[in-house]
Amino acid sequence: MAQLIALYNKPTDVAAFDAHYAGTHIPLAKKIPGLRRCQISTGAIDTPAGAAAYHLVAILDFDSKQAVLDGLASPEGKATAGDLANFAQAGVDLLIFDSKGV
Amino acid sequence: MAQLIALYNKPTDVAAFDAHYAGTHIPLAKKIPGLRRCQISTGAIDTPAGAAAYHLVAILDFDSKQAVLDGLASPEGKATAGDLANFAQAGVDLLIFDSKGV
Repeated sequence: MAQLIALYNKPTDVAAFDAHYAGTHIPLAKKIPGLRRCQISTGAIDTPAGAAAYHLVAILDFDSKQAVLDGLASPEGKATAGDLANFAQAGVDLLIFDSKGV
Repeated sequence: MAQLIALYNKPTDVAAFDAHYAGTHIPLAKKIPGLRRCQISTGAIDTPAGAAAYHLVAILDFDSKQAVLDGLASPEGKATAGDLANFAQAGVDLLIFDSKGV
């Protein structure tokens, strides 16, 4: 198993971010070849010390890190990445890694 | 569903971190009440632009954000959090959020 985690910084216009994310970005992301599951945060992102700097977290499951990279390199992956400029101007960190259950 | 994501910064002594994490921290974390699943990264954490700043990512699943908070407030949760000082001196970010599949 492998994950792509997307950590979205807090946008200036939360309502515009949320509308674009739900209406456009998720449908694009779900077309990425090799995507097995997609989970997104609902509500606030917290830390033990209070609110986190992030507005939204997405966890995308793939079979392997190579499958993540292949998915991002596909036309659907490029379309999804290209869409980030339309709503994630505040920045997004993408983390890609193989994983195992413990 | 809800997640606790732990993002560990790169340690000075990787071998000591990895040994303590596998031998002590995971066994402590797995005792936290309400924990449904625990996945950890294996190998390097990458970004589309190269290596990430993080050494290890853990994704802990719970039924709800409240279950995460209750788990952290339990004796087992406090023991797990207290153990961070023994190996995560480089720092760790904990993100807690409710989530849904999309």
